[in-house]
Amino acid sequence: MKFNLGCQLNYSLPEDSTFVLNISVARNDYQEVLEESIQIEPSLNYEEYVSPWVKNRYLRLNAPQGNLQVSYRATVEVSCPNENPDGIAEVPPAELPLDTLHYLYPSRYCQSDRLMRLAQHEFGALKPGYSRVNAICNWIYDSVTYLLGSTNPHTSAFDTATERAGVCRDFAHLGIAFCRALNIPARFVSSYAYNLEPPDFHAVFEAYLGDRWYLFDPTRMVPRQGLIRIGTGRDAADVSFATIFGPAQMEKMHLFVEHLEDRSPTATGDAIATG
Amino acid sequence: MKFNLGCQLNYSLPEDSTFVLNISVARNDYQEVLEESIQIEPSLNYEEYVSPWVKNRYLRLNAPQGNLQVSYRATVEVSCPNENPDGIAEVPPAELPLDTLHYLYPSRYCQSDRLMRLAQHEFGALKPGYSRVNAICNWIYDSVTYLLGSTNPHTSAFDTATERAGVCRDFAHLGIAFCRALNIPARFVSSYAYNLEPPDFHAVFEAYLGDRWYLFDPTRMVPRQGLIRIGTGRDAADVSFATIFGPAQMEKMHLFVEHLEDRSPTATGDAIATG
Amino acid sequence: MKFNLGCQLNYSLPEDSTFVLNISVARNDYQEVLEESIQIEPSLNYEEYVSPWVKNRYLRLNAPQGNLQVSYRATVEVSCPNENPDGIAEVPPAELPLDTLHYLYPSRYCQSDRLMRLAQHEFGALKPGYSRVNAICNWIYDSVTYLLGSTNPHTSAFDTATERAGVCRDFAHLGIAFCRALNIPARFVSSYAYNLEPPDFHAVFEAYLGDRWYLFDPTRMVPRQGLIRIGTGRDAADVSFATIFGPAQMEKMHLFVEHLEDRSPTATGDAIATG
Amino acid sequence: MKFNLGCQLNYSLPEDSTFVLNISVARNDYQEVLEESIQIEPSLNYEEYVSPWVKNRYLRLNAPQGNLQVSYRATVEVSCPNENPDGIAEVPPAELPLDTLHYLYPSRYCQSDRLMRLAQHEFGALKPGYSRVNAICNWIYDSVTYLLGSTNPHTSAFDTATERAGVCRDFAHLGIAFCRALNIPARFVSSYAYNLEPPDFHAVFEAYLGDRWYLFDPTRMVPRQGLIRIGTGRDAADVSFATIFGPAQMEKMHLFVEHLEDRSPTATGDAIATG
Repeated sequence: MKFNLGCQLNYSLPEDSTFVLNISVARNDYQEVLEESIQIEPSLNYEEYVSPWVKNRYLRLNAPQGNLQVSYRATVEVSCPNENPDGIAEVPPAELPLDTLHYLYPSRYCQSDRLMRLAQHEFGALKPGYSRVNAICNWIYDSVTYLLGSTNPHTSAFDTATERAGVCRDFAHLGIAFCRALNIPARFVSSYAYNLEPPDFHAVFEAYLGDRWYLFDPTRMVPRQGLIRIGTGRDAADVSFATIFGPAQMEKMHLFVEHLEDRSPTATGDAIATG
Repeated sequence: MKFNLGCQLNYSLPEDSTFVLNISVARNDYQEVLEESIQIEPSLNYEEYVSPWVKNRYLRLNAPQGNLQVSYRATVEVSCPNENPDGIAEVPPAELPLDTLHYLYPSRYCQSDRLMRLAQHEFGALKPGYSRVNAICNWIYDSVTYLLGSTNPHTSAFDTATERAGVCRDFAHLGIAFCRALNIPARFVSSYAYNLEPPDFHAVFEAYLGDRWYLFDPTRMVPRQGLIRIGTGRDAADVSFATIFGPAQMEKMHLFVEHLEDRSPTATGDAIATG
Repeated sequence: MKFNLGCQLNYSLPEDSTFVLNISVARNDYQEVLEESIQIEPSLNYEEYVSPWVKNRYLRLNAPQGNLQVSYRATVEVSCPNENPDGIAEVPPAELPLDTLHYLYPSRYCQSDRLMRLAQHEFGALKPGYSRVNAICNWIYDSVTYLLGSTNPHTSAFDTATERAGVCRDFAHLGIAFCRALNIPARFVSSYAYNLEPPDFHAVFEAYLGDRWYLFDPTRMVPRQGLIRIGTGRDAADVSFATIFGPAQMEKMHLFVEHLEDRSPTATGDAIATG
Repeated sequence: MKFNLGCQLNYSLPEDSTFVLNISVARNDYQEVLEESIQIEPSLNYEEYVSPWVKNRYLRLNAPQGNLQVSYRATVEVSCPNENPDGIAEVPPAELPLDTLHYLYPSRYCQSDRLMRLAQHEFGALKPGYSRVNAICNWIYDSVTYLLGSTNPHTSAFDTATERAGVCRDFAHLGIAFCRALNIPARFVSSYAYNLEPPDFHAVFEAYLGDRWYLFDPTRMVPRQGLIRIGTGRDAADVSFATIFGPAQMEKMHLFVEHLEDRSPTATGDAIATG
């Protein structure tokens, strides 16, 4: 599927500040960037760093005191294969690709080490496989209230497991933590999302099953086919859309995602392979 | 029912230390102390303080460097009424006795303020009353593993809600926190317990329902009729069996509880009124 | 000193709700209420409960759906003795009045059990006495940033010890936790405060020294002579100005404190005895 | 410097279990492995995975029910340059190599996002550079008690900042968290350590300064020249010496490190460059 998308970020800077932005769409086997532009006002140079494995694209720029506007636009073709979830199995630790192992370890916002018994209690008896990760997503959807403003940047899966309210980022963190606690590698995905209301960056997660990564969204807020990946990381700490060194104030943020073809993304029970 | 019970505590003290002990059986409408003795070696004076409402009996003694042995023995008649739990209702906040209100507030180990949504999610739809508190106990029994050594003196209900392992004190804290989150006053009870294996001090909790307090034990380790109350508090912080000011080392602890009559305490589905 | 003070609270209630308010000035040896009125719109009955030891005055009222306005006004004479702090000693646990002991135990927002080493490290070598509690206040003032909006109702002394930002309530909780960790009984005081900007309820704390309680305010925001006590508790959990059972929305809150005499409250290095 | 070193790990397995071991010495520009052997009883195949950037060597093996013994021995030449610390500067975020950026982000045990103000308060005014990281180490050494058994695998820098006790792993986590909070990339290093008493795996940390990584050990337990690197990671979660999938019980662990030359590792004030 083809999308036009973009964002515009406005900041006011009382002092010179350094920005590391992670807003560019990732280029990988399933995502082709057909066209792309980035515009910065005032006009500034920037460096791009593409992280070697997951291909996150980080832009660094040093902005002078005053106003800063960053506008990103892209046309992207996304072609993740849809698969029948029935045959997708979990991989025993003895057979996991060794480069997925570090997605089993606990991270800042996904303290899987402290959720072991809870995960076992809720999901330990379920049949392993895609359907078990799906059951994790259903549990989160049913047990956690989506509530804007209920959490903050310090909130972690350990908190959400008990406090039971959060936003997309918290839902993803809890899904990741549960998967890892069951020895399923899992990681965080930041994205543009078609039809998200209100428009914003979206957070979902991936689990490693069979011989690849599959996409999950416990919020059920958008069709997974309408997700265009920006960053991949252990959790939100790795893929903040803006890491700012200096005292900047965000003034405005605007996102858009348009669908360019006849068939629009729709909710599906299929598995969506993403890596 | 009538019990002989007691404990013997042995400490070695590298320096003079002050002890506040809460090991004496409480005297109240439902507990008559028929005989009692306390023996301290070396021979020392002590003060007793009985807290005005819940009648906890705190003994303070200043022990010199060296060895300390405290032996407590009592013969106690316990006569808590057994009631049919069916008619026992919750009391709306508008009608609660005002002196029970502070048992609704969060405390060190029972952070009910952070368990509101979890409590609502798990128990909010249940019929209010004794049976709802019983459902809380069943949930804890089913969801939390009783595991000696899995927790420490800093562990709180917020931890146990996710980590799902603990000892009697943790079970009681979680029950209290859930009750308070549902606007049911609840408090901690330390006790001697008949038939507890291995012998130790035991922790249970009370909830205020109808017009009095009722006893609950989510561990199901002993018959509730075999509980002889020592202390009552907001949580374990209030009724530690020994608060020690100084560098004492516990060397040995021994407890015993014997039943003195024909009919021994047995498991019962009755409500046990305790205050 | 004599003050006119009061507050007006406005709520909108989508449903009938029960309120427990703790906004009335406490009557004790050092505070005489010369005149007082409470006005509720719509006109409603209320019950008052005065807690037996610390004399907190809790008002309970059941308000119907719609708007609720509560107005409280009082004229109060405050006459806490000012003392020379030099001779005020700490009391060893062996000699503390036994009814102060439970102000040594950790509470929801003052986890003194987890701050033992930090308190020893920072204050353990200081000369015991009033000056040590003063040093605690200075440390808090120097180390924690007063920042409106930086914390929330779940924030505790354990958080503030590291996060180093908060409001008056957080400053008081940290002071209390440090004192308890050093075996100094300490408790939370909510108050009206002369010259507080912006006007709001204020939180300070008391420590037990010599043979009485003394007042401390690590925020230094107002002269301690200008504090008029509302509630006393283990921490903020006990003396919330409004505990609401039901879905109320606060619409407005207004407080005022006027000084009625020539000599106005001023900053002082004296100790202020309060109980 | 040249070392003979090794470890022997003994487990009993009630069931077949999968092990991922990180006990082999890393091969990099500063560490040459001259000889090496690994012995497993019963005889088992294993896979080795070398992580692409930091060159951690993970061994995976599937062990059958029964006893397992893993013995590792190596002769290693370590040749980290010693440098004069005076001229070693911090690198502003605008100039940091972009592949060091993710060592600025918070991780499971190093929640730098919650230590910002504490780090600023304690170290913000110090002259940036090697000496500031050294000041962090001194602060940790002076403020945190090294105490075996005081922490557990869930303990994090946020806890240690207040609880002020821990072991080498906790010391390293706190150092890393402080550095990141000051925008200094920092990471965890597990190692064999010459002269460590009692012999055990040791944890230290690295900070990125000037144009490379430098080694720091806030425990001061061993000369830094006597450290032989095993793993490098964001924190301990990445470099556990044994990640076990299955119910294994450790029965014994033995480590040794011998120095093979005349000049033995000694305490030094030099900076030790390691990457």
